[in-house]
Amino acid sequence: MKLITFDNGRVGRLELEEGTVIELDVPSTREYFERGGQVAETGERLRFADVRLEAPIRPKKFFHTAGNFADHHNELAAVDWSHPVHKGIVFFQNVDAIIGPDDAIVYPEGLTRELDYELELAIIIGKSGKFFGPDEAVDYIAGFTVFNDITARDIQRKEMESGVFSFSKGIDTFCPIGPWIVTADEVPDMHELPMQLRVNGEVRQQGNTNQTRIAFPHLVAYHSPQIYSAGDIITTGTISGVAAVQPNPFDFYLKPGDRIEAEITGIGTLRNHVVGWEEAYGEPAPQRVDW
Amino acid sequence: MKLITFDNGRVGRLELEEGTVIELDVPSTREYFERGGQVAETGERLRFADVRLEAPIRPKKFFHTAGNFADHHNELAAVDWSHPVHKGIVFFQNVDAIIGPDDAIVYPEGLTRELDYELELAIIIGKSGKFFGPDEAVDYIAGFTVFNDITARDIQRKEMESGVFSFSKGIDTFCPIGPWIVTADEVPDMHELPMQLRVNGEVRQQGNTNQTRIAFPHLVAYHSPQIYSAGDIITTGTISGVAAVQPNPFDFYLKPGDRIEAEITGIGTLRNHVVGWEEAYGEPAPQRVDW
Repeated sequence: MKLITFDNGRVGRLELEEGTVIELDVPSTREYFERGGQVAETGERLRFADVRLEAPIRPKKFFHTAGNFADHHNELAAVDWSHPVHKGIVFFQNVDAIIGPDDAIVYPEGLTRELDYELELAIIIGKSGKFFGPDEAVDYIAGFTVFNDITARDIQRKEMESGVFSFSKGIDTFCPIGPWIVTADEVPDMHELPMQLRVNGEVRQQGNTNQTRIAFPHLVAYHSPQIYSAGDIITTGTISGVAAVQPNPFDFYLKPGDRIEAEITGIGTLRNHVVGWEEAYGEPAPQRVDW
Repeated sequence: MKLITFDNGRVGRLELEEGTVIELDVPSTREYFERGGQVAETGERLRFADVRLEAPIRPKKFFHTAGNFADHHNELAAVDWSHPVHKGIVFFQNVDAIIGPDDAIVYPEGLTRELDYELELAIIIGKSGKFFGPDEAVDYIAGFTVFNDITARDIQRKEMESGVFSFSKGIDTFCPIGPWIVTADEVPDMHELPMQLRVNGEVRQQGNTNQTRIAFPHLVAYHSPQIYSAGDIITTGTISGVAAVQPNPFDFYLKPGDRIEAEITGIGTLRNHVVGWEEAYGEPAPQRVDW
């Protein structure tokens, strides 16, 4: 099933081939999972072409993991990065920075000049639980969506002087997810999903979840002492090809007008574009608060 | 005003000297702030001695900052810590790990042998907003509570090989806050609050918010590009005296049976105790999922 949020928070099941949305009688996709998917239809059916998609879920917690793909680990090791990116890294992504498909990423020119992208598969946790092992973890994996981890590399570099990075990935609009949630029963093998990110049609990242260094149920179990609530998101790490590691990264960093397509075969394509601050808000970008 | 949450989510105003709780007609303290404090009384009054306090708020986001106090910065620099703790550090604390006053911190013996404490003043953000400066920030500071940042130092040390630390502070029950929220109008000077943490009556941490390297409104403004929702928490960093920096830290790390009092004069005293896993749950502590 493809589960969507649309038109100011309505929830629906998308029949993509028919172009139909069947509305579900539940206030949010998060509550859909809290109820274990025991949700009736409202009886309303809409044409998919007539609805406006929103971020497919607003999770209580968004576990952001890193270092799970060997090639991204290796490319970071090759540049002047202050720390190794080990597997096992986790931090919480900013749930208020979430935007949906076709929403704009607003460029905060007063804060950064190095705006980067990172394609990731995001897992939707289907039920609450904690302190469980890899064998049980499969039962917690309820679905998948696409995550584009927008990052201000200049801020990240400064943050990494102290090790921790979070601000650089948590700025307003920096967390696009979507376009929908594909439930786990429709994904034959979560470790065999081609991934590709394009900017203005040009391929920037290309990989496959089969390149991960850790099985996703193991990843989910590993972090379970931090407790899962139904509807939580846990990401699985990005693949090689981010702008920061290119020979001339400034030719690759995002700029206003850029159109990004973050695609995972079998899940979907998340499209977002970048707009300048003044274009978005009609006033100059605010300057950074000094430190 | 002292704002409390009690008895399965009821909200009240505490008149401490009279020993009275005046119930407020609002589903949560978070919603109290979302409504700008425009909340009526239910008419019900209770004896404070008859209510059970809970965590004073369940925020949408919990900004965890670090490195703001010079003495804690210096003590960490003196030990074998892999990175400097600069001011400006931020990450999101696990909102599902929150516990309230008198709740037990459950010791996960399968994960850690180095359980530490950190006393911090936590600021409650009163309204939503983003991208604002220090002059405006005072209007966002609606109240204060006490935070005891429970940390597994052995896990933190391993995490810091990659820089990021979060898991070590985000384990179930590791986030005690309380005992109540003191609204900002009752705090004459937020930069002049004596702080003291005691374990089994013995003073471990002693300091004052006047030792901070940054004014709190500046801190709040600095992080505002990450967006505030009403009721969000932002912490202000800890003072010297944590167990990890003692000459023999294993004499200072927490153990089952310990009783912690985290006190900030003018705000309140947050009391929590440590219990072993088996005592809490009647079964052996689960082992760590290997990596």
